[in-house]
Amino acid sequence: MGAALEKPQEGTPVVVKLGTKSLKQALDKLTRVVPGRPSDPVLAHVALTPTYGALVLAASDGERDLELSIPADATPGPTRLVPAALLQRVAGSIAASEVTLTVTEDRLAVAGGGFQTELYLMEAGEELPLDFEGEPLLTAPANAIAGVFEPVLYAVSNEEYRAIFRGAQLEVHPDRLRAVASDGFRLALAERELPEGIVVTLPKEAEEAADAEDAEDAEETRAAPEEPFAFVTPKRSLIELLRLLPPGGAPVELRHRRGRLVVVTEDVRYATALLEGVYPDYRRPIPDEFVAVAEVEAKPLREALRRVLVLADAANARVDLAFEEGRVRLVGEGDYGRGEEVVELASYQGEPLTVVLNGRYLDDALQPVGATARLELSGPVSPMVVRDTGDVGYLAVVVPMRV
Amino acid sequence: MGAALEKPQEGTPVVVKLGTKSLKQALDKLTRVVPGRPSDPVLAHVALTPTYGALVLAASDGERDLELSIPADATPGPTRLVPAALLQRVAGSIAASEVTLTVTEDRLAVAGGGFQTELYLMEAGEELPLDFEGEPLLTAPANAIAGVFEPVLYAVSNEEYRAIFRGAQLEVHPDRLRAVASDGFRLALAERELPEGIVVTLPKEAEEAADAEDAEDAEETRAAPEEPFAFVTPKRSLIELLRLLPPGGAPVELRHRRGRLVVVTEDVRYATALLEGVYPDYRRPIPDEFVAVAEVEAKPLREALRRVLVLADAANARVDLAFEEGRVRLVGEGDYGRGEEVVELASYQGEPLTVVLNGRYLDDALQPVGATARLELSGPVSPMVVRDTGDVGYLAVVVPMRV
Repeated sequence: MGAALEKPQEGTPVVVKLGTKSLKQALDKLTRVVPGRPSDPVLAHVALTPTYGALVLAASDGERDLELSIPADATPGPTRLVPAALLQRVAGSIAASEVTLTVTEDRLAVAGGGFQTELYLMEAGEELPLDFEGEPLLTAPANAIAGVFEPVLYAVSNEEYRAIFRGAQLEVHPDRLRAVASDGFRLALAERELPEGIVVTLPKEAEEAADAEDAEDAEETRAAPEEPFAFVTPKRSLIELLRLLPPGGAPVELRHRRGRLVVVTEDVRYATALLEGVYPDYRRPIPDEFVAVAEVEAKPLREALRRVLVLADAANARVDLAFEEGRVRLVGEGDYGRGEEVVELASYQGEPLTVVLNGRYLDDALQPVGATARLELSGPVSPMVVRDTGDVGYLAVVVPMRV
Repeated sequence: MGAALEKPQEGTPVVVKLGTKSLKQALDKLTRVVPGRPSDPVLAHVALTPTYGALVLAASDGERDLELSIPADATPGPTRLVPAALLQRVAGSIAASEVTLTVTEDRLAVAGGGFQTELYLMEAGEELPLDFEGEPLLTAPANAIAGVFEPVLYAVSNEEYRAIFRGAQLEVHPDRLRAVASDGFRLALAERELPEGIVVTLPKEAEEAADAEDAEDAEETRAAPEEPFAFVTPKRSLIELLRLLPPGGAPVELRHRRGRLVVVTEDVRYATALLEGVYPDYRRPIPDEFVAVAEVEAKPLREALRRVLVLADAANARVDLAFEEGRVRLVGEGDYGRGEEVVELASYQGEPLTVVLNGRYLDDALQPVGATARLELSGPVSPMVVRDTGDVGYLAVVVPMRV
C-alpha cells in the first residue's frame, strides 16, 4: 500500500482537503509573481502538487520562481497546472472555511459549502520553469535580512538610466550584512550584525567578483578575503522578497549561483534573477568631516517638509533649509505660491548654514529613522549625511542642488 | 462701522479663521466637481467668499455647480479664486486643528500651527459660471430623495448608445417620488411616498413635457394634470447628489428650470444640467402575470451567484437558474470550467422552470433588496421581476437571454 501511495496511478482522482484561508493567502502571494500577459501561456498557471500532509503551489514569471507549501489533508499526487487568476477568483469566492480539491487527469474540482466547480487543467507534459538550485551562502534570522533591505528600498532608482541602480546591493560579510541603494543623487545604507555562530560560506565566485572589482578600480588593492561577497537584487524582486520573509527571527537560508539568488524559509522557496554588472564604489561620496551637526525629531521635520513641498517647485522639489542655533527654517516656493515653516532643533553645533536640496529626497532619507535624526552638514553644496541616533546601522546621503 | 463691514475696502486684508477638518471636507467635495483638464482655466479654481460667520466655497465644471457654506470666524469680503487642487493639498497637509486664511488682492495666506504658506490668486475680474436659479418644485426629506435614487443607480447605462439611458428619470407625483433607470436589458424602479403636508409645485413646463410625451406616443391620451413632472439626471451628477444629501430626514429643496435641476440643503447648493430627450415608456416591459413565484434569502443567493459567475462565460455572464420546489440550482459554464451551486428557497409556487439570464444583472437587481427577495417568473424567455418582500417601493426587471 505504501508503494501505491508513493506512485499514485494516473487516472485515480487525488483528493486534497485544506483551509480556504490558507489557500487564498497562498494564491494571493503566487499571483503577484504570475505575469499579466505572459509570453509563454504556461506562465499564467500555478502548479499544484499534493504531498504528504501538504499542498505545494508554485508560480513563475521566468525571472522569479515562487513555491509555497501549505498544510493539507493530502497524499502525493502528480503536478497539475491550473489557470492562476481563475483559481484565485474561485478560491476568493468560497465562503466555507474548508475546501476540497479533487484532481483528475484533466479537471480540478473545487468544492466548498454547497458550491462545486470544475476547472479545466493545462495538458499534462507542460511544466513551469522552476529552479531553486544554488550553493548555500548563509542562514540568517529573517529580521536581519529585512533589517538591511527595508531601510534602503526607497533609494533604489526607477530610472532606465544606469541599470545597476535599479537594484540594491547586498554585501555578505563574515560577521554582518550590509545593503546599499542609490540613484546617483542620494544613497541609503543599512547594516546589521549577524548573530554569533552563523557560518557564512563565500562561494568561489566571490573571489572572481573581487578580482573584477580590483580591475575596475586600481586603487583598491586589498586581499580578496577581505572583500565581502556582493550581488545586486532588482527592486521588484526585493519587494516580493520582503513580503515573503517570515516574521521575527525565523531562519532564512540564502543560496546563490551565478546571476541568481534563492531564498528558502520553512514553507517558501523563492528564486530571482540578479542584476548583472558591478555596483559603483559608494564609499567616496560619503563625507566624513562636517562643519555643523543638527539633531532633530524626525516626525515633525518630515511633516513640515511635506507641507512646504506642496508649494515647492514641482519639477525639482527644491526646499531651502536654513539651520541656526535651536531651529531650522524650511522654505518651498513654486509657480503657485510659497510655503514656510520653522522646526525646532534638539541641538545644533556649528555656524548658521543654509542647504538647498530636493525635499522629497530628505523626506525619504528620514523615513527609516526612529525618534531622532542626526543631520551632518558638510557645507552648502556638499552632501548631507542623515543618521538615526537610535540605530548606528543606518546612514543616508543627500546631495544638495547646485543653485 | 456697519457700513464699512458690508463693503470692505479693496486692499484691506480679510482674515478668516475656521476648523481645518471642515475646510478639508469641503474641499474634498468641491474638488470632485473641479474638472481634471478644464477647457477654461477658471474652472480649475475654487471661489472663496467670506460672509458673516461663514466661508462660502464654490466650484463648477460648467455643467455642475456646487457651493458649500462652512462655519467660520469671518466678516464679508470679496470673492477670490484659488487653484483648487493646490488649496486641497495645502489644507490636507495641515496638522493644526484651526487654520487662518488671510486674503489680500493677489494672495491667500494659509497659516496653521508653525506653517505659513502663500498662494497666488487668480486675477480679480474672473469668476466661476455659478447658477443656482430655478422654480421651487418641492421640499422633501433627504432620505425620500436618496431612497428613490440609490436603489436604481446600478441600472443606469454606461453605454454611449441611447444617451437618455445614461441618466435616471425622477418622477415627481403630487404624493410621491419615483425614480426609474434602465439600459434596455434590465430596469430598476423605486418609489417613496412623500410625508403629508408637502406641497409640490409643478412648473408650467410640466404641461409642455406632457404634451411632448403625448405627441411621441399617440396611445397615451390621459389629461395633462395626471402626468407626473419628470426629468432625467445624468449618472455622475446623481452620484454627486447622493454624496451631498444630508443624513436622515433633513429638508432638501428641489428647484427646476428647463434643462436644469437645483438642489438646496441647509449648507449646500448644487446645480446640474439634465439630459435632454424623452425617457422611453418603461411600463410595458414589466409583466403583471406570472407562472411561478419564488421567495429566497437575498444574501445567500447573491453569494452563490457570484461564485458561479467566476466560471461563467465572461462575455455574457450567462447563468442558468433551475427552479423547483424548495430550491434553485445555479450553473455557470465558460471556457475554463463550470460552477454549480444549489440555494434553498423559502417558498416556491409553480411548476419547475429554468430561466437563463445575465447573472450580473440578477446580482445587481438583488443589491437593494433587504432580507428576502421575491422572484416573479413569467416563463423561460419572459422578463423576471425582482421585488423586496420588505419594501413595496422597489421593483427590478431582468430580461432573460435568448438561448
